[in-house]
Amino acid sequence: MKHELDYIFKPRSVAVIGASRRKGSIGHEILHNILIAEFDGKVFPVNPKSPVIHSIKAYPTVLDVPDEVDLAILIVPKEHVKPVVRQCGEKGVKGIIVVSAGFSEVGPEGKAREMEVLEVVREYNMRMIGPNCFGIVNADPTVNLNATFGKTYPKSGNVGFITQSGAMGEAIMNHAAELGIGFSMVASIGNKADISSNDLLEYFKRDPRTSVILMYLENFGNPRNFTRIALETSLVKPIAAVKSGRTKLGAKAASSHTGALAGLDVGVDALFEQTGVMRVDTVEELFDVAAALSVQPIPKGNRVAVVTNAGGPGILATDALINSGMEMPSLTPGTIAELKKFSSADASFSNPMDMVAGAGPREYKLTLDAIKKDERFNIIIPIYVPPVTHDQLKVAVKIRESLTDTGKSVYACFMGAGGDSPGIEHLRQHNIPVFIFPEAIAGTLATIHGYTTWLNRPQGEVRTFNVDRGRVNGIIAKTVKGKDGAVVGEDALDILDAYGIQVAGYRYANSAEEAVGIAADISYPVVMKIASPAILHKTEVRGVIVDLRSEDEVRNAFHELKNRAGELEKGEYFSVAIQQMITGAVETVIGMTTDTSFGPLMMFGLGGIYVEVMKDVAFRVNPLTDQGAREMIKSLRSYPLLTGFRGAPPVDLATVEETLLRLSQLVRDFDCFSEIDVNPFIVSPDKENCKAVDARFIVHDSGCRA
Amino acid sequence: MKHELDYIFKPRSVAVIGASRRKGSIGHEILHNILIAEFDGKVFPVNPKSPVIHSIKAYPTVLDVPDEVDLAILIVPKEHVKPVVRQCGEKGVKGIIVVSAGFSEVGPEGKAREMEVLEVVREYNMRMIGPNCFGIVNADPTVNLNATFGKTYPKSGNVGFITQSGAMGEAIMNHAAELGIGFSMVASIGNKADISSNDLLEYFKRDPRTSVILMYLENFGNPRNFTRIALETSLVKPIAAVKSGRTKLGAKAASSHTGALAGLDVGVDALFEQTGVMRVDTVEELFDVAAALSVQPIPKGNRVAVVTNAGGPGILATDALINSGMEMPSLTPGTIAELKKFSSADASFSNPMDMVAGAGPREYKLTLDAIKKDERFNIIIPIYVPPVTHDQLKVAVKIRESLTDTGKSVYACFMGAGGDSPGIEHLRQHNIPVFIFPEAIAGTLATIHGYTTWLNRPQGEVRTFNVDRGRVNGIIAKTVKGKDGAVVGEDALDILDAYGIQVAGYRYANSAEEAVGIAADISYPVVMKIASPAILHKTEVRGVIVDLRSEDEVRNAFHELKNRAGELEKGEYFSVAIQQMITGAVETVIGMTTDTSFGPLMMFGLGGIYVEVMKDVAFRVNPLTDQGAREMIKSLRSYPLLTGFRGAPPVDLATVEETLLRLSQLVRDFDCFSEIDVNPFIVSPDKENCKAVDARFIVHDSGCRA
Repeated sequence: MKHELDYIFKPRSVAVIGASRRKGSIGHEILHNILIAEFDGKVFPVNPKSPVIHSIKAYPTVLDVPDEVDLAILIVPKEHVKPVVRQCGEKGVKGIIVVSAGFSEVGPEGKAREMEVLEVVREYNMRMIGPNCFGIVNADPTVNLNATFGKTYPKSGNVGFITQSGAMGEAIMNHAAELGIGFSMVASIGNKADISSNDLLEYFKRDPRTSVILMYLENFGNPRNFTRIALETSLVKPIAAVKSGRTKLGAKAASSHTGALAGLDVGVDALFEQTGVMRVDTVEELFDVAAALSVQPIPKGNRVAVVTNAGGPGILATDALINSGMEMPSLTPGTIAELKKFSSADASFSNPMDMVAGAGPREYKLTLDAIKKDERFNIIIPIYVPPVTHDQLKVAVKIRESLTDTGKSVYACFMGAGGDSPGIEHLRQHNIPVFIFPEAIAGTLATIHGYTTWLNRPQGEVRTFNVDRGRVNGIIAKTVKGKDGAVVGEDALDILDAYGIQVAGYRYANSAEEAVGIAADISYPVVMKIASPAILHKTEVRGVIVDLRSEDEVRNAFHELKNRAGELEKGEYFSVAIQQMITGAVETVIGMTTDTSFGPLMMFGLGGIYVEVMKDVAFRVNPLTDQGAREMIKSLRSYPLLTGFRGAPPVDLATVEETLLRLSQLVRDFDCFSEIDVNPFIVSPDKENCKAVDARFIVHDSGCRA
Repeated sequence: MKHELDYIFKPRSVAVIGASRRKGSIGHEILHNILIAEFDGKVFPVNPKSPVIHSIKAYPTVLDVPDEVDLAILIVPKEHVKPVVRQCGEKGVKGIIVVSAGFSEVGPEGKAREMEVLEVVREYNMRMIGPNCFGIVNADPTVNLNATFGKTYPKSGNVGFITQSGAMGEAIMNHAAELGIGFSMVASIGNKADISSNDLLEYFKRDPRTSVILMYLENFGNPRNFTRIALETSLVKPIAAVKSGRTKLGAKAASSHTGALAGLDVGVDALFEQTGVMRVDTVEELFDVAAALSVQPIPKGNRVAVVTNAGGPGILATDALINSGMEMPSLTPGTIAELKKFSSADASFSNPMDMVAGAGPREYKLTLDAIKKDERFNIIIPIYVPPVTHDQLKVAVKIRESLTDTGKSVYACFMGAGGDSPGIEHLRQHNIPVFIFPEAIAGTLATIHGYTTWLNRPQGEVRTFNVDRGRVNGIIAKTVKGKDGAVVGEDALDILDAYGIQVAGYRYANSAEEAVGIAADISYPVVMKIASPAILHKTEVRGVIVDLRSEDEVRNAFHELKNRAGELEKGEYFSVAIQQMITGAVETVIGMTTDTSFGPLMMFGLGGIYVEVMKDVAFRVNPLTDQGAREMIKSLRSYPLLTGFRGAPPVDLATVEETLLRLSQLVRDFDCFSEIDVNPFIVSPDKENCKAVDARFIVHDSGCRA
């Protein structure tokens, strides 16, 4: 069955509405591009003023076109877009590309104009790309559709590219042409009024000619759909993405640019990590990943052999590769013995294998032939600094002869070979990507390694525990919330308890002597904190004293806390809560924060200082899988403190993981919390002593379903 | 007066010994390069077998040359180098460049050969570059010396370049030629047997034609000299460097490559930071810095205006700039009012100023004219994504017309303009550097900003305190050191005390009851640790218990420690030391470690966990200045814990700084310590409670001067 987007990417006939004779105008360039790329279908220029454009008969309106029209491309003034779209609907057009600008990207008025256009599109069951876009490309030789106004018709290949910025799309296609990267399809999605990056991801996932997907994104239309679609796609094809708007100011620029609300960057990182999308920082890195994955197999591991004719680049490569998490095993004695048969005596028979400056085509061929046999290596990097004494093309030919179809991934580095290097040209033509600097190879491998690690790990599952949902409803209903909508103290711990999360029990005292009695009961050391609800909401009061070991200390602490609490409101009485102090434990923080785009982000970190000062904290988009919880915990820099630092026994990580999952379930079950802070959640070697000591829930203004 | 290196870089006459008629041979290429660059002096080929080379009369030996010879370039088999160098000495040659390889880079035998050559060089008071080098360039149009075997004669300019790898030198010159970067002088220093990077830094510092210095280094010959020379040079000219061998494996590759011992990478970072050298990670970044600083003024601040015709690149630039520590103030209302007079209504009048896609030459000129007047901006970044609708050369011309000689630093970004872009060409010819991607501009600015921050800060001074040096001598002389040469316990604290560093006093107890008495004396809480020297050296014994608050706790602790100590050796008795426990304090670690190249590195960090797990630790090469100590402290991620975290009063930072400086003086005064670990050094808000609680000194095998 024909996919509805096939009418856009594989149309049998295209109407260019707003086609123009004026050279340099967008309406001219798009028609021109379609014609010179030798589109395989029919093209109908539409323009009420010119009966002939580019020697082709033009029609006053799309309704006048004598044939069926699958796709209409609109380059008309913004005010005309809506009526023209309606004409397309009446004509029976299936797909629309609106290149015209002046819609949601320019403010509320434009937004309204865009919504009106969208209504007409929906009314006629059409699909639309844009408005405010650069067009699309399908470089399949059986289609050859270049419906953009760019200067470059990309080489046919297997890279699918989705870009939210038209300018970036053009810049990227130009640069890709220089690097010899070939595309299957390119889509500039503009304001994404109808067709979104999600729709295109699904479409590219199904497309047999696309094997790598690149994205340039400024925001997510529907991040929750993106999560599902990106994950399903990543499992079959690698996706690499640049998501701009990382910084607040960058996000502001993105927001004024696209009219979209930019999400928290930690959310984007979490989302990409969970869905296997390779996030790269720069457009340059996006190219590097594309150059590598479009022509070479995904490496089966991270073990690299470097072969070079120059020491310096070999060292740079080694530094960069090791820092990127690659391994460089040494050569086997057998390989070394073979290499010694023909190598210079000055060569360095290690990894990097430095053949020294005299090495020419013969040495490259023999050395690579010897090394490619070593099963331990997954990746081979031949580095060549062309000296005056050898013909670089001959070296390139030998590298290609030796390394084509080895099953290993091959990335060449020709340093300082010049822009028009025949050696680089030869290798690229034969599907060996060539980098100018060795550091870029390392960065690319690190990115790809992250993807393969994601692919090979267990996918994990969202777990559901037996919990007491009704009890949480009851607590929320009865709770006296503070002005900020916070549920704190015992109520907060009760919510956790209802979800099977262990909490440290409280007992209350209204006087110092009562406190002493309770402490003796619980057994020393104890923790004392202010219990009066009204004071609890005053976060500026330091309301906790820990590690009290004697009657005297308990008595003093009671008076100290009363002092700190200050003047009480009328009708309020002062009381403290006393808890057992768990020793030999590590303080963690478990929580949730809400991102405007992604919804709830689960959070985990160690102690207040690690989270607040060291910024050592892990996020995951909810729902959280068991695998995701494990990864969150392990991703912390402070993780060693949980596994037995300085001879201490390791804490019960299974309980930490389960607690994260139970909290994740609570967040799934109740959408009324905008923030949760379980702080501290004490963890220790034995399960019984892993307990939430304090918690705080912020409830949305709209409240919970009771 | 003529500098001795002038005979090498500005010779009046050059002998090419080993010049050859065989095309492609090094001896051929060097002579060829000298001739085609139109060297301003006389050239004498020397070759016993060919009477004429390149139509020039050749001489059998250098002794046969009829004129004086300033510089001899040797491309002869390694065995012939020594006798030929002697001939040069006899001839009165002043400078030697040995291109021939087969010396210290190939092992001990080569090293011996190199030392013999060096002896002859010294005997005749000559200076030598190499062996195993790529040659030198002086692109001064009054000299025009290209004594390399590379394919590129670099453009004349103001960048001085020192490279330890010949291959890197060639690769870099080729790439620089593509970017239009001009050089004053280039020196490939090879094995650095005589002339080192330090010599060349000094020489380039004096050279009026050099205003930026680039270095590619694999190791430091004499890092202590480098410290002084690099610092003096950085004060007058910016230096940017790639130092490879960052990772252990990379360092191993560097070491097998150059025969040099690679230093600790933290040492290199510390050294560069202290001396104002801009350390960049990749050769690509080295170019970017060169492209920026060679033609544009050093920015007077970090406030950037971005002007773009495309939203996407504007956002990418903003993200990258903000992440790199730049500031992007918004436009003033006055500027906005002016811009509105001619801009598209769809433009976004913020920073980045997005002129939207229609912007052409006129808009670039008017917009940049308006923005350059704003005094708040130090840096202007015009971004241009060439659309089909405008001529990019015209835009480039307008950018140049508007921004030449504004006193501000200008970096242009032409994204996707193509490799042979006439716009890029035009700007580069007119000294405006052009980058393809905006992220590279941000990285470059961050690097340069680090340099200007260094330039503008107080230089700091090495302070000298009144200390009791004799007492330290006494302690070392009498000390019973452990098997590992460690001075620990009271002795170690006494050394600190002699240098005016506050220490927490000890009192000793041989029984639990004695301990209880002392604790009552000192006042609770107290710390107890094992005092028996033999046990102290057993680091695996957990010999400290803190925060003891009662008689019972002290008694239990005594027995617990005795248990941990285990079986005592004959003649050994068990005792504990008791100290006051300082509360409300932060634990820091102050120390020193020795780097094989750089000597003592001073170290500072917080608590054991921050140093050991979080790797949050600062290093500086000794001697440490007061400014350096301040920077060390502030550079920690955990620094906020010292300045009053969560309402705690800030600790006495002046005492921390002074302690670092006093320890630095101790390290200067006594060269017998290979490691010092003051751990913990407790710091609190009041000076009296900033104290070293424990310390450990490792003494070199050779011992201290007593």
